[in-house]
Amino acid sequence: MKSIRGVTVAAEIIPTDSMATDELDPVFALHRGGKMEVRSTVPVRDRDDLSLAYTPGVARVCTAIAENPELVHDYTWVSNTVAVVTDGTAVLGLGDIGPAASLPVMEGKAILFKQFGGVDAVPIALDCTDVDELVDTIARLAPSFGGINLEDISAPRCFEVERRLQERVSIPVFHDDQHGTAIVALAALRNAATVTGRGLGDLRAVISGAGAAGIAIAKILIEAGIGDLCVVDSRGIVHEGRDDLTPIKRMIAELTNKAGLRGGIEVAMKGADVFLGVSAGKVAEDVVATMAPEAIIFAMANPNPEIDPDVAHKYAAVVATGRSDYPNQINNVLAFPGVFAGALSVRAKRITEGMKVAAAEALAAVVADELAPDRVIPSPFDERVAPAVTKAVAEAARRDGVARV
Amino acid sequence: MKSIRGVTVAAEIIPTDSMATDELDPVFALHRGGKMEVRSTVPVRDRDDLSLAYTPGVARVCTAIAENPELVHDYTWVSNTVAVVTDGTAVLGLGDIGPAASLPVMEGKAILFKQFGGVDAVPIALDCTDVDELVDTIARLAPSFGGINLEDISAPRCFEVERRLQERVSIPVFHDDQHGTAIVALAALRNAATVTGRGLGDLRAVISGAGAAGIAIAKILIEAGIGDLCVVDSRGIVHEGRDDLTPIKRMIAELTNKAGLRGGIEVAMKGADVFLGVSAGKVAEDVVATMAPEAIIFAMANPNPEIDPDVAHKYAAVVATGRSDYPNQINNVLAFPGVFAGALSVRAKRITEGMKVAAAEALAAVVADELAPDRVIPSPFDERVAPAVTKAVAEAARRDGVARV
Repeated sequence: MKSIRGVTVAAEIIPTDSMATDELDPVFALHRGGKMEVRSTVPVRDRDDLSLAYTPGVARVCTAIAENPELVHDYTWVSNTVAVVTDGTAVLGLGDIGPAASLPVMEGKAILFKQFGGVDAVPIALDCTDVDELVDTIARLAPSFGGINLEDISAPRCFEVERRLQERVSIPVFHDDQHGTAIVALAALRNAATVTGRGLGDLRAVISGAGAAGIAIAKILIEAGIGDLCVVDSRGIVHEGRDDLTPIKRMIAELTNKAGLRGGIEVAMKGADVFLGVSAGKVAEDVVATMAPEAIIFAMANPNPEIDPDVAHKYAAVVATGRSDYPNQINNVLAFPGVFAGALSVRAKRITEGMKVAAAEALAAVVADELAPDRVIPSPFDERVAPAVTKAVAEAARRDGVARV
Repeated sequence: MKSIRGVTVAAEIIPTDSMATDELDPVFALHRGGKMEVRSTVPVRDRDDLSLAYTPGVARVCTAIAENPELVHDYTWVSNTVAVVTDGTAVLGLGDIGPAASLPVMEGKAILFKQFGGVDAVPIALDCTDVDELVDTIARLAPSFGGINLEDISAPRCFEVERRLQERVSIPVFHDDQHGTAIVALAALRNAATVTGRGLGDLRAVISGAGAAGIAIAKILIEAGIGDLCVVDSRGIVHEGRDDLTPIKRMIAELTNKAGLRGGIEVAMKGADVFLGVSAGKVAEDVVATMAPEAIIFAMANPNPEIDPDVAHKYAAVVATGRSDYPNQINNVLAFPGVFAGALSVRAKRITEGMKVAAAEALAAVVADELAPDRVIPSPFDERVAPAVTKAVAEAARRDGVARV
């Protein structure tokens, strides 16, 4: 007899295949059996405990919620729990690997929610990719959770899934690949502008990439008052003259590119103050060299930044990447735990633009007194971050009228 | 600033309503904030930890699963996790109270899974009741879990949901209200027969109630070789001459009632050896008095048994109830944790009839050496139960060819 997670079982029913591999590889060894568990927070030792936590006592709690549905937030784990939902179509840089293969990422996200925000999170990988099916399925799940974190759903479906789902449910829906990235990028850009003596309104920015992150960064920068903005996709600058634009890119074309630029990344970059890369498309050094003085470069593709940090430093005053081994890491974990912790704390019905901007401002403010070109954003392990973001998001939810308490 | 589950938040964002009530009522106090949480089982202290549990390390695990989907059982929590899924239509004795109000029961079930079987379980309360929608939704969720425990879904929809879902997915689907109850009742009945010097084949049983539990008990008793069986619903004995039968009751009519009895419970009970109550319908003492000598009475309605235990003892050799304050408690917690722990341990594709019967036999065997009329079934807190059921179910899965390892 052996023990699996504290339960004694017959030795012969413990799978042994691939155990040998684990010993040679710390990543696989760590993932053996998964990275998370469920735990009771109440005692279940004897009949008396059961009569409170289960029958017959539990029936009174059920009845109370049936009579007043708001009490579900008081007396169930819904109050502190989000679903991390994916369809496995845009996982990391791996692309469409399907629901099962996406689970290690969703589990990782779930433990980050707990570690950094104190939020309980459950990985939900769905075996469907049709927008109607995704919206229906997640809406039917919604009573079980206090919020829905969408994850690694490919563009442009992710935009419609998020919008339609939020119309159906009255708990927060937040596509982290879009808004988490956008919040952290905005926070870093605010501080980069400050450290170089400018405001956002003074800057002309180029976003390379028009997927989930690129579109969301464009929207939050417009909301925050960026001077001008040019979005570049794989076919060049997104402008109103193109006839190959999706509806969301058409909207972006209308809201950006005041100078009416047409052409490739090299046209957009000439004289630009800011480069924001979320595409993995490389930018040549001679193009980087055409940026304005005191340039700001956020080359966020992971693990290979669009512009090599050493090259970027030759031309830019501030450089950030998505990597943990360089200063100024643009990491979503700086945003999503506090965003949901704040939203859940006031039982928010949704996440407003104001809550996202408030999150970015709170995040930027954490390092306001220690600003430097290599310190425009806090470390992911800075313990001041989550409480600051939580508080700012909760207050913004109240201001925007979406808080229930 | 205060702390919620270890996270510091602004004091003003902690909800305070109904706190006062809690102090007066231990059930509500215990349920405050829910009864469970998610915990990381791996360290997330620094960049090195993150690079193993999250990016970039996690990408290699995702890739490995994409190449060999079976590895999801090795490297994610799917290996040990079930969804406890309800639509909130038949919750305890409360009926159709909806998904949100059902959550305290689902959380309770989830913590019992962990406490008694070491199985991680996630409450999923769905906002739909249509059979097609339930099957579609749960099938789409299935990649996230190692098994599906259906709970508190009303009959007759529960039969079709379970059957069609199991056809769609290759992980175990188990409607506990049916099969958990049936397994424990069969185990207790085996021992009650033994303690009164008979075998199952010697017994004529009456089942009062043709809902989820009644139908499942009928099926498992037929499978186990009961002598004869009569099922009684609210309109009387289920027999082939009735024109008001659902398809499942028609099947039951064909397989039971060898004597061709017609009429009410009083007709069925005359000379019966066994009464199995899962209906809450009371049975009068003068009807109980007509049972055969050495009768066996399992009056399982909770909290009010169909036959008062004191009355039952006047006419029966063995009496069991669903209550914790009498001997011989027929409690599903004796079955479902071990059933799923066993099924998950061999990565079973489904739960066969053989696995259910094996669970019942293992459960009965736990008290084989200490049998007595007031000890035909172990206590829910008997620590021998879950390992015995786990082992028996795993072995039966291998025998029945549904084990993957």
